[in-house]
Amino acid sequence: MNLKKTLTSIVMLSSLNTPVYAGSEIQTLITMLHENGMVSDAQFKRLQIELEQNKASKKPEKQAVEKQLTAVKKLDDVVVKVKGGIMVKTRDDEFSTKLGGRVQADAASYSGQPDMGDGTEIRRARLYLQGKMYHDWGYKLQYDFASTGAHGKGIADAFISYNGFDDMQLKVGNFKDPFSLQDQTSSKYVLFTERALPEAFAAGRHIGVMASTKRKHWSLAGGLFGDSLTTTNGANHNQDEGWGASARVTFAPINEKTKVVHFGLGLNYRDTGGIGTTSFKQQAETHISGINIVNTGTISNAKDFFKLGAEIATVRGAFSAQAEYITTRVNRKGMSNLNFYGWYAQAGYFFTGESRHYKKGAFGGITPKSNVGEGGIGAWELGLRYSTLDLSDRNIDGGQADSMTLGLNWYATPTLRFSANYVDVLNVNGGNYNNQQPHLFQVRSQWAF
Amino acid sequence: MNLKKTLTSIVMLSSLNTPVYAGSEIQTLITMLHENGMVSDAQFKRLQIELEQNKASKKPEKQAVEKQLTAVKKLDDVVVKVKGGIMVKTRDDEFSTKLGGRVQADAASYSGQPDMGDGTEIRRARLYLQGKMYHDWGYKLQYDFASTGAHGKGIADAFISYNGFDDMQLKVGNFKDPFSLQDQTSSKYVLFTERALPEAFAAGRHIGVMASTKRKHWSLAGGLFGDSLTTTNGANHNQDEGWGASARVTFAPINEKTKVVHFGLGLNYRDTGGIGTTSFKQQAETHISGINIVNTGTISNAKDFFKLGAEIATVRGAFSAQAEYITTRVNRKGMSNLNFYGWYAQAGYFFTGESRHYKKGAFGGITPKSNVGEGGIGAWELGLRYSTLDLSDRNIDGGQADSMTLGLNWYATPTLRFSANYVDVLNVNGGNYNNQQPHLFQVRSQWAF
Amino acid sequence: MNLKKTLTSIVMLSSLNTPVYAGSEIQTLITMLHENGMVSDAQFKRLQIELEQNKASKKPEKQAVEKQLTAVKKLDDVVVKVKGGIMVKTRDDEFSTKLGGRVQADAASYSGQPDMGDGTEIRRARLYLQGKMYHDWGYKLQYDFASTGAHGKGIADAFISYNGFDDMQLKVGNFKDPFSLQDQTSSKYVLFTERALPEAFAAGRHIGVMASTKRKHWSLAGGLFGDSLTTTNGANHNQDEGWGASARVTFAPINEKTKVVHFGLGLNYRDTGGIGTTSFKQQAETHISGINIVNTGTISNAKDFFKLGAEIATVRGAFSAQAEYITTRVNRKGMSNLNFYGWYAQAGYFFTGESRHYKKGAFGGITPKSNVGEGGIGAWELGLRYSTLDLSDRNIDGGQADSMTLGLNWYATPTLRFSANYVDVLNVNGGNYNNQQPHLFQVRSQWAF
Repeated sequence: MNLKKTLTSIVMLSSLNTPVYAGSEIQTLITMLHENGMVSDAQFKRLQIELEQNKASKKPEKQAVEKQLTAVKKLDDVVVKVKGGIMVKTRDDEFSTKLGGRVQADAASYSGQPDMGDGTEIRRARLYLQGKMYHDWGYKLQYDFASTGAHGKGIADAFISYNGFDDMQLKVGNFKDPFSLQDQTSSKYVLFTERALPEAFAAGRHIGVMASTKRKHWSLAGGLFGDSLTTTNGANHNQDEGWGASARVTFAPINEKTKVVHFGLGLNYRDTGGIGTTSFKQQAETHISGINIVNTGTISNAKDFFKLGAEIATVRGAFSAQAEYITTRVNRKGMSNLNFYGWYAQAGYFFTGESRHYKKGAFGGITPKSNVGEGGIGAWELGLRYSTLDLSDRNIDGGQADSMTLGLNWYATPTLRFSANYVDVLNVNGGNYNNQQPHLFQVRSQWAF
Repeated sequence: MNLKKTLTSIVMLSSLNTPVYAGSEIQTLITMLHENGMVSDAQFKRLQIELEQNKASKKPEKQAVEKQLTAVKKLDDVVVKVKGGIMVKTRDDEFSTKLGGRVQADAASYSGQPDMGDGTEIRRARLYLQGKMYHDWGYKLQYDFASTGAHGKGIADAFISYNGFDDMQLKVGNFKDPFSLQDQTSSKYVLFTERALPEAFAAGRHIGVMASTKRKHWSLAGGLFGDSLTTTNGANHNQDEGWGASARVTFAPINEKTKVVHFGLGLNYRDTGGIGTTSFKQQAETHISGINIVNTGTISNAKDFFKLGAEIATVRGAFSAQAEYITTRVNRKGMSNLNFYGWYAQAGYFFTGESRHYKKGAFGGITPKSNVGEGGIGAWELGLRYSTLDLSDRNIDGGQADSMTLGLNWYATPTLRFSANYVDVLNVNGGNYNNQQPHLFQVRSQWAF
Repeated sequence: MNLKKTLTSIVMLSSLNTPVYAGSEIQTLITMLHENGMVSDAQFKRLQIELEQNKASKKPEKQAVEKQLTAVKKLDDVVVKVKGGIMVKTRDDEFSTKLGGRVQADAASYSGQPDMGDGTEIRRARLYLQGKMYHDWGYKLQYDFASTGAHGKGIADAFISYNGFDDMQLKVGNFKDPFSLQDQTSSKYVLFTERALPEAFAAGRHIGVMASTKRKHWSLAGGLFGDSLTTTNGANHNQDEGWGASARVTFAPINEKTKVVHFGLGLNYRDTGGIGTTSFKQQAETHISGINIVNTGTISNAKDFFKLGAEIATVRGAFSAQAEYITTRVNRKGMSNLNFYGWYAQAGYFFTGESRHYKKGAFGGITPKSNVGEGGIGAWELGLRYSTLDLSDRNIDGGQADSMTLGLNWYATPTLRFSANYVDVLNVNGGNYNNQQPHLFQVRSQWAF
């Protein structure tokens, strides 16, 4: 159904039907009246001439319209949308492009020990160009202007996808390894301003290839990856970069709009390549301060490491909850293995009645029941989280930390979010900040689409 | 007024009126003639059948048109403009997005003393995405590819604005502190290629919150700000970043299209935070050379500083003039205060008769009376400026400099500008370049929209 | 031919012609029948009233349509396209904007000597905004997110062009010097993943001005340039940057769609400015490893250097071939001159029957005969290349290398390319890697538009 057809119909109604009409009742009536002797021969002739003239005058105009309709056809090809960013797609669903982005402007105030400097930062400032080409292909480039550096550091996503198979997607380029529910959930949509402590074990983004299937009640993804963009082959250019493999399976026996039960399992393997070292560290669920409250430092002789993660999540109307446990085993050459682990559990509740949006293995964006600017108050959500991370094992004294977070989110519109988080690090055992208990208050203003 | 309505009207004219007609004169005439015995019963019957058939044949087509009109509605939602960049907005004024940018390609040649290396540079290369969402909200991200670095250095604007109050705008994120006429005027629009020497006291951009009101004859803006994006909390991550407050009030007793009188007053306070130092410096109204002809160096023990600025500007047809005086007082711990100051006065004249465009407290873009490429010659403007800056006080010998600038601007179109500036540093007293007098010639090619 | 005209025609057909009709046959018939006494005076009056009413009811609707058509006019101004990226242009050909980009995701595996670390990288990740303004002017900003750094390092193109002269284009800003066929051909379109060894002599991009003429059978371009964006005026800011001049002439006695013969000649001069040094180096036709198999190191006392390049290329249906020879002479102060040179010859063949696209002095993009995603298999191309580079002369022992490359390209669609290259460095004579023979296998996934 499109403009051309509409216009054609209008023209048919106006130019085609009218002649039919003109050629029938009025023509018939005139002929009848002439036959009945009600109009003279001269009058009949004059009426016939008028009829002919009118018909003739319509013909070139009809042709002109046909020609113009061909030109109009092109107008008709694309749809343009502008609910934040710009989205253009062809009506035949062969091509699309979306230009979007996000900005997160943060401020934080710290107290307790250790001393952590108060401050502000642009946490993320991203633009992306994403689209569809020739029906079966997709592409994306996303860059983070708040995280620039050498070797393409700020490049988030940069990939090609192929969607020509029935239920499977192939992807090649730079993108996130499939691992961990909180890491698969976009930073735009996570419940708190920063992810929980076990984000120390996030698999991150690498250049690689991945196959994935996403259905209503389960998803499966597995891929082979090189090293992160910022990793190079050493000062002498002779070290092999690392490589890895990652897989994640999720199962959602219940997946309705406001009622979800999700289980997930992730496996992540990484060979450290010629570099032969690794490290794990984490800030106190904050980012402005550069202090890592737990930190293994460089683990030498690290041949490879293997992570295993278990996920559970649920949505019940306005209530949502999720928990993850991740364990990491580092294999060292000529030394005993190391085992680190962490877990978190969190719950959220919308006072305004919205539901977290679950989409094939991860959480998506919030659509408030009413928007500020359209007479509404947006969506208001309260969140509570407990998380723990243990980076101490054998000779590695990275420290162990527990923290509790209370958060408030206000989604003024689907594209805007204002968050306030209070994080209380309950304790740090071991490491550089042994027995210290920082706490902090941080706020974020975010636009994203 | 939109496409759907237009099409509906056309359809009404063609499909609705014609039946009315068909159902009236011709029907009436046939009935009359039958009553008068002018057409036989058989003829009447045949005419009625023809009438019915034509009516019936129109009905499904009418329904098809109605359906198609619903589909066409979407075409109708947005307006796309392309006068440089891309602008899309919804017709209901709820959403808009503009993708724009600027490039300034410069070259400079130096003579006199000190030696300053000739060269070229891309002074600014910016893209921005800016728009409106849900009627009351605005957003912007602007990045400068010519000024990259750590901690989001190149991020210029990154904010959310709320415009739901009658005359007030709220802003949160990263943007310019409200202070100084020449700094509030975009680099696209300032009279010379570089701002005058007192730009050493520009407040710059910080993450913060601001409230502002802009009316025809006055504007008022005030905000609280954190530190600049590139400032972090120190090597040990334990220094608080600085913070500041800034306010600016402007008054335009005359504000007509070609006749403006403007007064302004700005206050800017900044606490140096845990860093405890500051510095002021300035190049010779050029940027390619890295030499700062006046430079306080690091001022230690600087607790905070306070700037006060007074502005005056006018437009009289093709003539424009503006002047500013800014003084800065640095409070030092356990040491006497420091006072620095600077001022400039400048005037411009359009040979081609255009007027500088004044918009609620700052100057905006030039629209030539005729454009090159459309048979015109663009706008030609001559400018003259005197500026002075004194960064010496007590134990700080930053130096004092005066300079004179002669500039020629050619605005070939509203989006293009070519500028040539000759800067003569009349004298430097004190500092590293005592008694030296560099002069320089610089050119710029700029596209911006 | 546009929407407004179309709609006007439709309205004319429907609203104008129908009244003509209504006012002619039926009016004439009624008048005749009345004159003939076939309808009574009362009946005639009633018919006249009906006719008048119908006419009157059409008038305000006609006016409403006229008004609405004026509003519709704006819809009509622009064309939006989305075959990868977003393209918007005005129908009057005065303005256009294209937002496009490219991503190249690479992986490489090395063997032989020297040791070169295997790895992955995003070779290029670019976005550009390019367009036309006020008919005669063009602009472009292109940034490479995979090549960031100080002083605008990632800025590829940033210029203004003027196209108001008949056959000549003027350009000012940052763009490629006109020199070398393989360098003028975009990295999106070159036959192999990396250009041949003589790319060591590529002129690169600088800020400058250029005049060029491109006709069917020949092209000519010449310009004056400053130094590269990353070059600054030294630690003390007192060194002049370098400058250069470059010219290229091409001649294509045969230039048909599938049959091309091309000859080219390039001259490139560069003064090293206050820096006074230069260097030439090249990797083994790979980029992931940082090892330069030939490398002059810093050549001190280098006053200036002059490059001369000769090009030849041909297309014969699915077959294409090109070769270049480039020689460089470095003039040193108080020391004898240095002469370096290199050449390559390469050939490609499309199994699927496509032809390399030649466009006024360089090669452009491939359009497969059939696309994957539309039932096709894309275009498949095999390439073979021999290249050599000699960077040893007099006291400079940069080394000399020969290499052979075998490549396979699969263009799944006009916007996608997957390439696999095997490079065998036949020998290195002299330099840091004397007598070593690395070989390597590298793959690339590319989207570009």
